[in-house]
Amino acid sequence: MKSIVIVYYSGSGHTALVADSVAKGARSVPDTQVDLLRISGEQIQQGRWKDDATLAKLASADAIVFGTPTYMGGASAQFKAFADATGETWYKRGWSGKLAAGFTSSGSPSGDKLSTLLYLNVFANQHGMLWIPQPNINSAAVGRTDGVNRLGSHTGVMAQNTGAPGTPPVLDSGDATTAELLGRQVATIAKRL
Amino acid sequence: MKSIVIVYYSGSGHTALVADSVAKGARSVPDTQVDLLRISGEQIQQGRWKDDATLAKLASADAIVFGTPTYMGGASAQFKAFADATGETWYKRGWSGKLAAGFTSSGSPSGDKLSTLLYLNVFANQHGMLWIPQPNINSAAVGRTDGVNRLGSHTGVMAQNTGAPGTPPVLDSGDATTAELLGRQVATIAKRL
Amino acid sequence: MKSIVIVYYSGSGHTALVADSVAKGARSVPDTQVDLLRISGEQIQQGRWKDDATLAKLASADAIVFGTPTYMGGASAQFKAFADATGETWYKRGWSGKLAAGFTSSGSPSGDKLSTLLYLNVFANQHGMLWIPQPNINSAAVGRTDGVNRLGSHTGVMAQNTGAPGTPPVLDSGDATTAELLGRQVATIAKRL
Amino acid sequence: MKSIVIVYYSGSGHTALVADSVAKGARSVPDTQVDLLRISGEQIQQGRWKDDATLAKLASADAIVFGTPTYMGGASAQFKAFADATGETWYKRGWSGKLAAGFTSSGSPSGDKLSTLLYLNVFANQHGMLWIPQPNINSAAVGRTDGVNRLGSHTGVMAQNTGAPGTPPVLDSGDATTAELLGRQVATIAKRL
Repeated sequence: MKSIVIVYYSGSGHTALVADSVAKGARSVPDTQVDLLRISGEQIQQGRWKDDATLAKLASADAIVFGTPTYMGGASAQFKAFADATGETWYKRGWSGKLAAGFTSSGSPSGDKLSTLLYLNVFANQHGMLWIPQPNINSAAVGRTDGVNRLGSHTGVMAQNTGAPGTPPVLDSGDATTAELLGRQVATIAKRL
Repeated sequence: MKSIVIVYYSGSGHTALVADSVAKGARSVPDTQVDLLRISGEQIQQGRWKDDATLAKLASADAIVFGTPTYMGGASAQFKAFADATGETWYKRGWSGKLAAGFTSSGSPSGDKLSTLLYLNVFANQHGMLWIPQPNINSAAVGRTDGVNRLGSHTGVMAQNTGAPGTPPVLDSGDATTAELLGRQVATIAKRL
Repeated sequence: MKSIVIVYYSGSGHTALVADSVAKGARSVPDTQVDLLRISGEQIQQGRWKDDATLAKLASADAIVFGTPTYMGGASAQFKAFADATGETWYKRGWSGKLAAGFTSSGSPSGDKLSTLLYLNVFANQHGMLWIPQPNINSAAVGRTDGVNRLGSHTGVMAQNTGAPGTPPVLDSGDATTAELLGRQVATIAKRL
Repeated sequence: MKSIVIVYYSGSGHTALVADSVAKGARSVPDTQVDLLRISGEQIQQGRWKDDATLAKLASADAIVFGTPTYMGGASAQFKAFADATGETWYKRGWSGKLAAGFTSSGSPSGDKLSTLLYLNVFANQHGMLWIPQPNINSAAVGRTDGVNRLGSHTGVMAQNTGAPGTPPVLDSGDATTAELLGRQVATIAKRL
């Protein structure tokens, strides 16, 4: 049994929808345990995040998938507070050799989401983790209309909230499929390692 | 009279259309001289670019706008060969204090174009130039349908080739307007400095 | 009189030393008002930063210099909480056309500090600000021993805390001079615009 | 028997020394075949790289380690010409699932080398490869004096040419060890997959 943990922050709820899709894809692989851990503002005191239960869960994971909205051109402060709190784990090389992947959301097609994904990749590199990219090319380039990787991102999954401002978030069906496929890819590679 | 030089590489011709739009915007500002310099493969021998006339033109510019397609997640090799050939100018701080801006093209909405724009920004930083970003937010966010910054990019202009594979490149009208507005912004700031 | 505001977060106190050097350089330019605003954990509730006085001060600045330590490969969560709180200013284009620059600190020579500086640059781009890079090449390359830009960074100032772990932070003299020169550069350009 | 291919460009010869160290480390792992492929200017015509033998070798590799000097804030144009020539491989997902890692060189401690390593990481992500980071923290942080990761880089190996200008390149002993350890890490993970 391999353990995949998806740790993410979501403000409006859109990134949570992406996280659910990643989980669905990972669960489609037999013998895979999938946990969703949502970072909350309550875990942050004076800009510092603390939640020992989350860190314990991550310590025993085979793969960690990181998710955050893109706010002002980067990972949300809430996600970053979580990342900053892993300094001791970093020092002890606690996550070294684990698998990593990532996803992010915003309202525009591009919206500087690559800045966030590059940060997640650097963060995983700091921990000595192996980065699993979003593996599919834009399906439109091969004549398909399923919307897989419709935005054209490889470092991780980019999802665009297509809901109107002030209404509940809407996850594009192509973005949902892309997220599922990333979850499946992570779980598949976890079984091989 | 202020001098704006747009130096770019274009393979399929799509980036050249963006360059033309930037030029149109810059020319809309009175007392502005605009030159378009297209990098060609013929200027590159064994991976090294050389064209003294281009470097002389750039030496006297008040602002330089850099443009390149995004190939395999970054600036095209042809553009990079030009960039690498500015090492002596860099050493002599020849472009220090000049204005800079950038644009890039690819086939997907995102398509890792931010990686290219960040590189252009770093390149300008190396030269001590002042970076002028694409100044407009995605117009859809304020209820407009003109397509200005429809892809959501601030570091520079992202343009998507919406033509079918194997047919002439097509510049989206919103992307064209975004490029014009960047050209106008650069020329406007050049007059103030 | 031009107004330069340096807004920064500092944990150990090292980034605060860099901020002081930037301020010293800016103050060396006549008719320049320099303010240092330090972000504190107390301004952050559940991961969200709020301080109306700071935002009011920034609204009237001609130039804003951003500073943060590099934690886990990026800007500190506390700085990012500040950045995330500027969304309304971003929407209203409140900082558009202002000048921007940046600096960061960590314990290693490189230490992924460029990741942080690139973020600060993207953040300024989102706001439509003009980015002023650190203008000097590594002085060792031209045979000088003053340590100016000794680490080799152009996007902003990189400073390395050379103090031993568990002791008060130490700012390298070359890094201090580099920071002063950036402050002077920002104030000089502010007078021209 | 696992196959590790190191494909790199070197101008002055410094990056070639790093490549040799990576190869030495990979060869220390039993049952590992290591090949060094050096990109040359002769393989580039009008900015386009072509060498079918190199592409054939890479097609059968289990892991590919990419290396290039950092020129003007990014991968050298010669390396980028090689990268651009992998577009058909990308389209066919020919390298999907292979392992990847990277290294770069320049004359300063930081020298914007992270920009280059991030590009190599994005390039590998485009190909669907798994990225193996440089796994060690700066050894000085744990009281060692062996110079392992002395510059503080996780995404890949940063090496600084410590030779005087105009003299043969010199590879720092700590940087050499760091490169060896990356080569060993890549070969070790290749055996597990």
